[in-house]
Amino acid sequence: MTARVSVDFLDTDRVSVSDRGFTYGDGLFETLRIVRGRAPLWPRHAARLRAGCERLRIPPPDMGAVLNEALRLADGLDDAVARVTLTRGPGTRGYAPPAAPRPVLAVAVSPLALDAPAALAGIAVRLCATRLAIQPLLAGMKHLNRLEQVMARGEWDDPGIAEGLMLDTAGDLVCATAANLFAVFGGRLETPPVDRCGVAGVARAEVMAVREVAETRLNPVRLERADEVFLTSAVRGILPVRVFGARSWQPGPVTRALQAHWRDIGLPSLEGPKDFHR
Amino acid sequence: MTARVSVDFLDTDRVSVSDRGFTYGDGLFETLRIVRGRAPLWPRHAARLRAGCERLRIPPPDMGAVLNEALRLADGLDDAVARVTLTRGPGTRGYAPPAAPRPVLAVAVSPLALDAPAALAGIAVRLCATRLAIQPLLAGMKHLNRLEQVMARGEWDDPGIAEGLMLDTAGDLVCATAANLFAVFGGRLETPPVDRCGVAGVARAEVMAVREVAETRLNPVRLERADEVFLTSAVRGILPVRVFGARSWQPGPVTRALQAHWRDIGLPSLEGPKDFHR
Repeated sequence: MTARVSVDFLDTDRVSVSDRGFTYGDGLFETLRIVRGRAPLWPRHAARLRAGCERLRIPPPDMGAVLNEALRLADGLDDAVARVTLTRGPGTRGYAPPAAPRPVLAVAVSPLALDAPAALAGIAVRLCATRLAIQPLLAGMKHLNRLEQVMARGEWDDPGIAEGLMLDTAGDLVCATAANLFAVFGGRLETPPVDRCGVAGVARAEVMAVREVAETRLNPVRLERADEVFLTSAVRGILPVRVFGARSWQPGPVTRALQAHWRDIGLPSLEGPKDFHR
Repeated sequence: MTARVSVDFLDTDRVSVSDRGFTYGDGLFETLRIVRGRAPLWPRHAARLRAGCERLRIPPPDMGAVLNEALRLADGLDDAVARVTLTRGPGTRGYAPPAAPRPVLAVAVSPLALDAPAALAGIAVRLCATRLAIQPLLAGMKHLNRLEQVMARGEWDDPGIAEGLMLDTAGDLVCATAANLFAVFGGRLETPPVDRCGVAGVARAEVMAVREVAETRLNPVRLERADEVFLTSAVRGILPVRVFGARSWQPGPVTRALQAHWRDIGLPSLEGPKDFHR
């Protein structure tokens, strides 16, 4: 990986083994796309990071400085992805959070080459056996405790399957391993709530800001009856679902309209970076 | 903290920000007590670590080499605690586990000064508001996703309260934030199962090996009716509970017998390290 990395704004890719991010997953992250020096969804990333800091009682960073650091590391890249990790910082032994935490900020930027055919024709998704535990105290946050997603994504290695949908332990569909889930039923756009588990995706929030969306619990049987199904990701954008279970779809009008919106705000995916940059 | 640390048997306390332990909490840990160069519970630690590796599909380390490294770092310390962290190692972006993971092993050893009065007179514990999510896929393992424990331990800072008991989201008592829970009812020893959440503690396993123990779901109302209550920890040993809710206890015969067993296997706690070393 040819990532450019800094830790606390210094030129290093190393953190202490006593960092609570390493010892307990005690922190948060954001993964943002930067196209030619712009991160159009940054305000939503910053808002989610700030909300996560409040919930975990981690002092929030200077959000402007975080963005500048990501942009600095992305300098010269046409299309890039930045992972911003914020931890509660160094700790002594034991779970007790330090009274005066000194959070650690790690930023890693890599070149991004999106899969334009996936955005154009859609992707095949499967249903994961790994289920999400119901934990309202952590739901919605993009925290560093991601073993459920790791186990779910480890269930398959067929490169023809791009994503896996995840149920919660109550049997409701919540999201994909690294994306949110939307479905259209008779013109009505729906997405599962993320109040019991799952991540409140930045791309999900963007869709909900520009379209009327009902937050409803979904199950696989009902999903197969949808007119359109797509996934949303801050990095990959709007991904039409082409195949799930016995059902297949062509990308529909709501999906295409949202892809057009993504392009309009500066995050093209259909053309691929090369075409876009001509 | 004056910890002695190594990473992959090298003299460093740093790991990469791309280590999956840091990015996703994708790994396991053990915290063991070393008294004058001996780690009596090591076989149980090694067995749990190996079982966790199997469940997470992380290649297990050479357990003898891990123990030797902990003992090397503890050399010269009368009483020490070693934290052994094993992660899936470096990763590229995304949750998918690498096909050929190169696990990373971090060992950190610190001097230990146990709280002998706590072991003698018992501790006060509270009931945490933070509940444990029910996730059988992760239950029992000592993995690196510990935000629930961090949030629970962050609920109080009264130094007079030594531990907090945790319920699962179904309302059953499971454990303390960093210890397992036992109660005696009419001579019968009980501990909550850890099949839905919680950690299968090494000290818990030792108790279950030397005493008949029933794994039964417990609730706070029933706990207050117990004849004896104690916590178990690989580092802190057998900790009598002196106060919980409206109830108080004196350390009872089962508790004292197990403390004697702990001393017999080389892990004294009642006397404090100073007296023990005379």
